Amino acid sequence: MLMFLDDYSEGAHPALLEALVAGNGGQELGYGKDQYSRLATARIAAQVGRDCEVHLLVGGTQTNLTCLGAFLRSHEGVIAAQTAHINVHETGAIEATGHRIVQIPTPTGKLDPGLVDQALAQHEDEHSVRPAGIFLAQATEVGGVYTGEELGALCAHAHARGLWVYVDGARLAPALAALGARLDLVVACGVDAFFVGGTKNGALCGEAVVLVNDGLRRDFRYHMKQRGALLAKGRLLGIQFARLFDGDDLWYRLGAQANAAAARLARGLSGCGVPPRAAEANQVFVELPDDAATRLATAVRFHVWSHGERGTVIRLVCSWATDEATVDRLIDEVRGALAASTGTATPPGEVRETGGTARAGSGA
Amino acid sequence: MLMFLDDYSEGAHPALLEALVAGNGGQELGYGKDQYSRLATARIAAQVGRDCEVHLLVGGTQTNLTCLGAFLRSHEGVIAAQTAHINVHETGAIEATGHRIVQIPTPTGKLDPGLVDQALAQHEDEHSVRPAGIFLAQATEVGGVYTGEELGALCAHAHARGLWVYVDGARLAPALAALGARLDLVVACGVDAFFVGGTKNGALCGEAVVLVNDGLRRDFRYHMKQRGALLAKGRLLGIQFARLFDGDDLWYRLGAQANAAAARLARGLSGCGVPPRAAEANQVFVELPDDAATRLATAVRFHVWSHGERGTVIRLVCSWATDEATVDRLIDEVRGALAASTGTATPPGEVRETGGTARAGSGA
Amino acid sequence: MLMFLDDYSEGAHPALLEALVAGNGGQELGYGKDQYSRLATARIAAQVGRDCEVHLLVGGTQTNLTCLGAFLRSHEGVIAAQTAHINVHETGAIEATGHRIVQIPTPTGKLDPGLVDQALAQHEDEHSVRPAGIFLAQATEVGGVYTGEELGALCAHAHARGLWVYVDGARLAPALAALGARLDLVVACGVDAFFVGGTKNGALCGEAVVLVNDGLRRDFRYHMKQRGALLAKGRLLGIQFARLFDGDDLWYRLGAQANAAAARLARGLSGCGVPPRAAEANQVFVELPDDAATRLATAVRFHVWSHGERGTVIRLVCSWATDEATVDRLIDEVRGALAASTGTATPPGEVRETGGTARAGSGA
Amino acid sequence: MLMFLDDYSEGAHPALLEALVAGNGGQELGYGKDQYSRLATARIAAQVGRDCEVHLLVGGTQTNLTCLGAFLRSHEGVIAAQTAHINVHETGAIEATGHRIVQIPTPTGKLDPGLVDQALAQHEDEHSVRPAGIFLAQATEVGGVYTGEELGALCAHAHARGLWVYVDGARLAPALAALGARLDLVVACGVDAFFVGGTKNGALCGEAVVLVNDGLRRDFRYHMKQRGALLAKGRLLGIQFARLFDGDDLWYRLGAQANAAAARLARGLSGCGVPPRAAEANQVFVELPDDAATRLATAVRFHVWSHGERGTVIRLVCSWATDEATVDRLIDEVRGALAASTGTATPPGEVRETGGTARAGSGA
Repeated sequence: MLMFLDDYSEGAHPALLEALVAGNGGQELGYGKDQYSRLATARIAAQVGRDCEVHLLVGGTQTNLTCLGAFLRSHEGVIAAQTAHINVHETGAIEATGHRIVQIPTPTGKLDPGLVDQALAQHEDEHSVRPAGIFLAQATEVGGVYTGEELGALCAHAHARGLWVYVDGARLAPALAALGARLDLVVACGVDAFFVGGTKNGALCGEAVVLVNDGLRRDFRYHMKQRGALLAKGRLLGIQFARLFDGDDLWYRLGAQANAAAARLARGLSGCGVPPRAAEANQVFVELPDDAATRLATAVRFHVWSHGERGTVIRLVCSWATDEATVDRLIDEVRGALAASTGTATPPGEVRETGGTARAGSGA
Repeated sequence: MLMFLDDYSEGAHPALLEALVAGNGGQELGYGKDQYSRLATARIAAQVGRDCEVHLLVGGTQTNLTCLGAFLRSHEGVIAAQTAHINVHETGAIEATGHRIVQIPTPTGKLDPGLVDQALAQHEDEHSVRPAGIFLAQATEVGGVYTGEELGALCAHAHARGLWVYVDGARLAPALAALGARLDLVVACGVDAFFVGGTKNGALCGEAVVLVNDGLRRDFRYHMKQRGALLAKGRLLGIQFARLFDGDDLWYRLGAQANAAAARLARGLSGCGVPPRAAEANQVFVELPDDAATRLATAVRFHVWSHGERGTVIRLVCSWATDEATVDRLIDEVRGALAASTGTATPPGEVRETGGTARAGSGA
Repeated sequence: MLMFLDDYSEGAHPALLEALVAGNGGQELGYGKDQYSRLATARIAAQVGRDCEVHLLVGGTQTNLTCLGAFLRSHEGVIAAQTAHINVHETGAIEATGHRIVQIPTPTGKLDPGLVDQALAQHEDEHSVRPAGIFLAQATEVGGVYTGEELGALCAHAHARGLWVYVDGARLAPALAALGARLDLVVACGVDAFFVGGTKNGALCGEAVVLVNDGLRRDFRYHMKQRGALLAKGRLLGIQFARLFDGDDLWYRLGAQANAAAARLARGLSGCGVPPRAAEANQVFVELPDDAATRLATAVRFHVWSHGERGTVIRLVCSWATDEATVDRLIDEVRGALAASTGTATPPGEVRETGGTARAGSGA
Repeated sequence: MLMFLDDYSEGAHPALLEALVAGNGGQELGYGKDQYSRLATARIAAQVGRDCEVHLLVGGTQTNLTCLGAFLRSHEGVIAAQTAHINVHETGAIEATGHRIVQIPTPTGKLDPGLVDQALAQHEDEHSVRPAGIFLAQATEVGGVYTGEELGALCAHAHARGLWVYVDGARLAPALAALGARLDLVVACGVDAFFVGGTKNGALCGEAVVLVNDGLRRDFRYHMKQRGALLAKGRLLGIQFARLFDGDDLWYRLGAQANAAAARLARGLSGCGVPPRAAEANQVFVELPDDAATRLATAVRFHVWSHGERGTVIRLVCSWATDEATVDRLIDEVRGALAASTGTATPPGEVRETGGTARAGSGA
């Protein structure tokens, strides 16, 4: 069965596994003070090209809750798109640290200055939380990529209103590949803190937090430890990130590979008559007639994203490990499902379930 | 200056103050074990007419956070209308106890079975919080009153899905007056827990929590103490509630008085050509041309609720203490403001502020 | 039955009740923006004699959790004596805001620079919380009063180590009476924030927070609202504190009255051959043979504090309302209980319960 | 420089790394639904030999906070020895989930029924948290191992008082090796939930939670996700635990290896005239004259544990990877440091710092 569920279905990129084997011997200090972690954070800082602090954590939700829990005072909230990962797929992790997410409906999954001002207008006194910062994902949870201009404008607007900007970079490598840019772009746009995603870009696990804004750095290792995010054998993270940011630009290249597969898939879907909604990086969202989606689910694992007016929107995710042949097989399956479809949407009220497998693992 | 900001601008009803004076002497046990608190909770339980536990707390936000914090386990969330008080006017108090509010947009400010099912459909596995219960306010935050049928259907639906129903009764007295009902109705509808509002219905302070569902009662006094809601001199609450639920139905009568004033106001507004949107209990929402609202704000204090397509929606609240003459003066002011109005809405983009006074005290 | 359980068994001082009656009419803004709250906070600020912010809250646990929750970042803890009220009698209220109390065993219930340094020595890196401030109660929970010298030395020491000092002033009036001092002393000693206790000194309810340190003031009303501590009808608090700090020094005089009663009691106990352990303000702790304590409990309500080597330590609390005749009756009861006692301690291992009544209301 | 700081200084056991390489290919479902995680949890459940749920998490603090946060309701606390890891080395992680640790001073680092009753006696009503369960570490944080009898008696006592027992098993393998027992012993003693330590026993990372008590299992994956403890590429954990519990008893053997090294070290120290205080499993605590400890720190990395009356207590930890030659070199260093020592303790008040290296990595 084909699997386009997500970008963490594979193991590690072989080069990382080799590095783990090579670095397994010898004793190291714990909790991120090992030589590999020091090397990795130095390499990332060099890529950022600006004074910053870099810390290595294990996973995305952990990183988001540790960062936002560290940045926010108890009466403060964070502004985020309604579709934000922290708002829909993290089981109230931010709220469990005591903080409210100020949700904003967005047309595209992206925030912009006008949307931020709407949120601020509804939070003018002590009867609401004080918005202190902005959360966004680059690439977004619904497939888009902020351009440098968009991100720069948003950061400038935020700073003018006393807000910081934090970027969830779980899919930062594909996003930067899409922009033809590198880590320094993120900081050049004015982002105050972000993370460099490893899990979805070749690592077994790992997200590297980059704290640029001096005001957000204070005592960050305390917050890591308090949230259970200070890994005892830090070398597991250090070795992987040191390898990803070694001289051969592996981290960047893996992002580009994922995008190339997604682009091939998008072209194929258009060729089938179902052009995808958004495929700016490595996630492809496409709407199929309900019966075609149901049929496709018998051969391919994917997430059902939503039920639209005319059919089912599904998400197909490519990774660095998705090869061309697999993409082409998927396109064949879609073509077959469409050919057998009556093309009509299931009438509202009827069940439109696409099978248990299609929904497995909804972490997104 | 007239003041229609809210229903807590007055002091206590004189009968309550008299009772406080009468009960001031002598020593009593602390923390709600005094004779007056025992009497008050017994009287309320008698009105409820069903096995229950009754506890006296000080204010509405305190009561909501203490109850929901007690009812919810850490991974659980509470379903509420987007307009719910806990969602918009309590400064993230629920989130500060670690819990997410599952917000539902509603057409009217009321929840119903279909809306609940929508929320549940988006919370199917461990990547979202588990909805455990429903929060609603009776009367609602936007002026409506759930009928017994509506509330009964919602509770039945909730129970069938394993959810409890909790009712914020800050304005329960006007709501029950509107329905011609008494406290026993709330329980007959299936509500699992609710509070009997005192602050907005004649008391200096005080909300009486009624725990009906046995599963929600456990160790409630621990939760009260932990949240700072166990008043040392419990007699302050006990005396007031004992008086409100003395033989003369004072609590019920005050709710009816507030409604009568609101009804008079609604009729007057209709007479001016601006029929209010909703005035089922003691809150009146009416849309005025922007310049009329601005002008009115020079003579009357009120809350600007929202800016609509054709003008400004303002909220005018009546209480047990609002007399007919004051209502009539307000109607005169509205008539005058309308007469001087050009009747056109301010073009979007221009500032439509109605003056500092109009927004003071946005606790709602 | 005599009752020496605590200093919140009485109602309000009559002068406060009169003020409440006098100020009951008319409409006022909610949430502490009423004229009485403004007057009260101005009067308290004048007594403090230094630039500061004053806020009115309802009760002691509420005040402690609101203040400490506001002052601490998530990875920070507060240093307190093991006997501190927040550590033993507040049901984990501070922990429920996410913060650890760094407990220090003390010989006397008081903190001093050496004890603070002990705590700091055990908190040197990110594997422990970062101590950010110090909590202490004046008078202490075990009957002592910090002298101006003690408090000044502690504050200077704390500040040199980057710690703020917060004082629980539930019994500040008796403490200042014992020192012959006024509110300005607290600030002169260097305290960063404290509260002026009303509940235990003549009010029906109410504690006035004084924020001196500018770094601790930020957005305090947000924290109040979030914790359910922003009273809708703020006049209830404003009127009482305005009266307590009116020209006749009522707040100070009530503290002195409580102390005078306690001093009379201490002299009487010494006359009975059982000199109290500490009676520097209005709490008297005395050790009685176990059987004497048990016998006394049939006639007097009090708290059993601990079981010592030679008997039972009980706490007897006087208030502004404790008159001389009642004190003398208590002394007679003690004398009688001692006369009937065999004078021997119950052997360890046997039950030494002094009756249900003796333990009622352990809020302390 | 020799390093006896802890048992997580090494990388993975080579067999685990081989397994990771072997299992790296192919796509798997995320979040612990991969084939390896299913295999690992089945193998552990088989060892437990009782109906239970098994979940794989990344690290010890994360596991403790996820479990206790899941088990406790908001007003409940957990009883633990004052020396417990959660109490001293987890940066308030439990408090950050809102819960108080009920600390008990212990003579030996172990809890027993009498100590538990002491804690309960101080928590009798709603003015303190309600103790709901017991935390203990097996082996303890100070080198001891609960015998089966001790653990059984503690569990029986706890259950009779309505408390559950949770065991931190970071060093469970050495503890069970010391007892000549296997995982089924833990459950036979009555433990309600525990974790099987991987990080300190051969894995790169990983702790396997075993939930035995049905009442503690509910929605555990929700809690994992909420705390950031649901690893996206679950195979990283699944492969390692599947290998540790493969047919060759690797997990058990590694524990025994660590103990053998510690026993050799203990014998050597005794031979030097400084018999260790406790060395029941793989941690050795020994008191040296202050100058000897300082000298030793120039050649060996270790933790200074405390400063005793006669000298400095240091901790020396062995792991599965500690070979005999290294132990013998350490013994030689100790012998040399003792020979050069004046044998006198530094007078109290003087600084007795043993150098920066000696304190590095205090996670313990």
